Amino acid sequence: MPEGSFDALDYLFHPRSVAVVGASTSLGPGSFVEAIQQMGFKGDLYPVNPKAQEINGLKCYPSLGDVPGDVDYVISSVPLRFVEQLVEDAGRKGVKVIHFFTAGFSETGDEDAAALEARILARAKELGMRVIGPNCMGLYVPESGLSFMPFLPAEPGDIALLSQSGANAGEFCRSGSVRGLRYSKVVSYGNGSDVRESELLEYVAEDPATSVIACYIEGIRDGAHFMRALRKAAAAKPVIILKGGRTEAGTRAVNSHTGSLAGSLQIFDAAVRQAGAIRVDRMEELIDSVVAARFLRGLRGPRAGIVGGGGGHSVLASDEVGAAGLQMPALPEPTQQQLRDFTPAAGTSVRNPVDTSVGMGPDGNKAMLDTIRIVASAPNIDYVIYHTTWGWGPMRPGMPDFVAMAREQATKLGELSRETGKPIIGVARHPTSANGMEATLVFLEDAAAGGLATFSSVQSAALAIVRLLGWQSRREDAFVPAK
Amino acid sequence: MPEGSFDALDYLFHPRSVAVVGASTSLGPGSFVEAIQQMGFKGDLYPVNPKAQEINGLKCYPSLGDVPGDVDYVISSVPLRFVEQLVEDAGRKGVKVIHFFTAGFSETGDEDAAALEARILARAKELGMRVIGPNCMGLYVPESGLSFMPFLPAEPGDIALLSQSGANAGEFCRSGSVRGLRYSKVVSYGNGSDVRESELLEYVAEDPATSVIACYIEGIRDGAHFMRALRKAAAAKPVIILKGGRTEAGTRAVNSHTGSLAGSLQIFDAAVRQAGAIRVDRMEELIDSVVAARFLRGLRGPRAGIVGGGGGHSVLASDEVGAAGLQMPALPEPTQQQLRDFTPAAGTSVRNPVDTSVGMGPDGNKAMLDTIRIVASAPNIDYVIYHTTWGWGPMRPGMPDFVAMAREQATKLGELSRETGKPIIGVARHPTSANGMEATLVFLEDAAAGGLATFSSVQSAALAIVRLLGWQSRREDAFVPAK
Repeated sequence: MPEGSFDALDYLFHPRSVAVVGASTSLGPGSFVEAIQQMGFKGDLYPVNPKAQEINGLKCYPSLGDVPGDVDYVISSVPLRFVEQLVEDAGRKGVKVIHFFTAGFSETGDEDAAALEARILARAKELGMRVIGPNCMGLYVPESGLSFMPFLPAEPGDIALLSQSGANAGEFCRSGSVRGLRYSKVVSYGNGSDVRESELLEYVAEDPATSVIACYIEGIRDGAHFMRALRKAAAAKPVIILKGGRTEAGTRAVNSHTGSLAGSLQIFDAAVRQAGAIRVDRMEELIDSVVAARFLRGLRGPRAGIVGGGGGHSVLASDEVGAAGLQMPALPEPTQQQLRDFTPAAGTSVRNPVDTSVGMGPDGNKAMLDTIRIVASAPNIDYVIYHTTWGWGPMRPGMPDFVAMAREQATKLGELSRETGKPIIGVARHPTSANGMEATLVFLEDAAAGGLATFSSVQSAALAIVRLLGWQSRREDAFVPAK
Repeated sequence: MPEGSFDALDYLFHPRSVAVVGASTSLGPGSFVEAIQQMGFKGDLYPVNPKAQEINGLKCYPSLGDVPGDVDYVISSVPLRFVEQLVEDAGRKGVKVIHFFTAGFSETGDEDAAALEARILARAKELGMRVIGPNCMGLYVPESGLSFMPFLPAEPGDIALLSQSGANAGEFCRSGSVRGLRYSKVVSYGNGSDVRESELLEYVAEDPATSVIACYIEGIRDGAHFMRALRKAAAAKPVIILKGGRTEAGTRAVNSHTGSLAGSLQIFDAAVRQAGAIRVDRMEELIDSVVAARFLRGLRGPRAGIVGGGGGHSVLASDEVGAAGLQMPALPEPTQQQLRDFTPAAGTSVRNPVDTSVGMGPDGNKAMLDTIRIVASAPNIDYVIYHTTWGWGPMRPGMPDFVAMAREQATKLGELSRETGKPIIGVARHPTSANGMEATLVFLEDAAAGGLATFSSVQSAALAIVRLLGWQSRREDAFVPAK
């Protein structure tokens, strides 16, 4: 099949049976078996470990050869000294894809280890197998029932992530899921000896299940192929890339991690720009930009209405909006008047930003939602940023139930956004207590369920909005017919 | 007494009796009475509210005149229309300081409201009273048993905060307390009609209980006085200032909030630089820099040892250290060899950053602490940044107890730091679950109790370190004798 053909890679993501060879006998973070069980994998799942009879209710086999049925996909957790034997066993078994969680290959900088990586790759190719890794977490594809870590959402979604780091992939998926992201194809490909960024980009570009593409990339092996793939992907969907190794220190770390050559950031940036993708500097920004691309796409303009409690918070929110290059126009006089009708000691605090203490009073949720409705309805506002923080101090009888308030508010914000036709952006600052965390998680989850983008600071929101608006304007340019 | 005399202001912070006039009958966030009770205030506390007989176990008086004993300090929560009467009542009662939580004065932009503010200030002066505010939260001084919000630490400490915003003061105190900050004098002074930044700076500069000064400032009334006060304070102690209104949007918000004129950021910056203070752009940076000044003062140099689990996390940590302008030298070969002895598939991952999975194994805490000890002992390392994240997924039987692990690790990190003589900096990324939050809070609290600086990202840590090192080098310059 030709380079970049969708079908050439599609079977990777849809194995009918999986064997975890060297399966961990303990459950939790390190258990591929438990992770896949939690996804409700519909095919056959075979733990292989000569030291166990059973893992989490599944019969465990002493070797891959002992597995009774066909095996499409092998996850290797075996020690390095067993990998060559495993490739032979897999070949005999007719395995199509082998994922090496096993590490200790070229990334160590050791020549013998690099030679071993080259040898198993060559042999796997001879035997008709594709290789994922080594030194990586492999696949998290909820739709197919695959996962690389327990406790990730089993519900499929439309975000693809291509990552050279398993730890970063895990953090992206966990932190993103709290903010409503759900995933189509997540690939942690580590050293990328075979399957890697360019081929994967071409695949997710065509994948109908994917609408936003996130990447964590440390190094590129074939610049020309990458450029073609990135162009194709970025023409089809928003592509946001976190480049590991953007400094000299990071470049050295990249070399120890995946054995990649980080290359010049200038060249990488030029490629990203030419392709129409977005590059970010850190994990939080990657998630923020994906949230913006997922929930705010089509945003009409830069004009923010800012609503929240606390004069100082309002000042700092305004500074972030201003520093990011967004706008915060004064609300029209009729809008201000509507707000003054029920805002205590309103003064100029209803001009924009709207600094209001109505949320603290009786019926606080209703008054705050009324405030946001009025601001969202103003004709010179493209979106509302609502900033808040949840729960401080212990919950006690007679005090408001923060979790219930957060749930109600988040749900109604979604309704308000649909009613007014304006995006409402929820900023919930990081909490400082366990009950605040509980309320914050409920707020984020329910807001996202209602279609809202959420962030942990106004700065994060503003920067993500600026990146999205920039991306949109470049795309609109691209569609303007040539004169 | 002359300008800037310590005694001229000291009595403000040590009232023998407090009356809360217009005291809220409900407890929790809005209750000054409960806040002060929680601090263990040793003097007499009098709630005043004609609609209540008792508030939280204290007899409530219908008016200030009905209070039986002397009253040094009045907190006004009365509606605007009662403030002039209250000033008269307070004068008759011999009150020394009156704090107006009451808002609706000059900050509204209304001329009559501004005239009222001027009138009550003039009358208070005639009657021998100092005024805090209006439009502010007033004092949180644990040593004296004063507080403006429930659930702040009752234990006194050495951090002073001077803030024009009560909401920002609350956020600073709550978020900082989680990271081990404790407070000497916190003043939320709002519109600053009488007591404000310059006089307060002169006071905390001399205050023996204060070792680090944080400020949230929106506007300055007397530039020359401010410059003198800032010079005096910054010569004595680290002074870190968050300036609200650093953009045009923020400036407009400042005007609505405290009625201040934000002024030119360039002029403000020049003043900060000349005085030898530090300016930051956002609340998190203010807290980060105070944490650095409190726990890392005397840091010997820029050379970081980076330790943590996850190759991708290590790469991004290295990028942040590099981008901030810090150094990350390769560890000496004997140090690397010591690490290789027990690090699986070590390769070059022990060079620095040290990317190790030992924390995941059995006895994970011990192996991680051994790793950090070895890195901290390397002669070319000035400090260690240990990055981690706590608790993902539900806790279950058979899984490690994250909270207990966090407690043990944090405690031992403090011991390690003392043993090696090197600062160990704890970076705990924001958690994504309620049990992760619990473990994170324990980690932060216990690490701080052992003298460790903690941050929520390597970026935050690196930027705070750079600001601290810059401040230290400028101070050392100042002490070099002229040639």
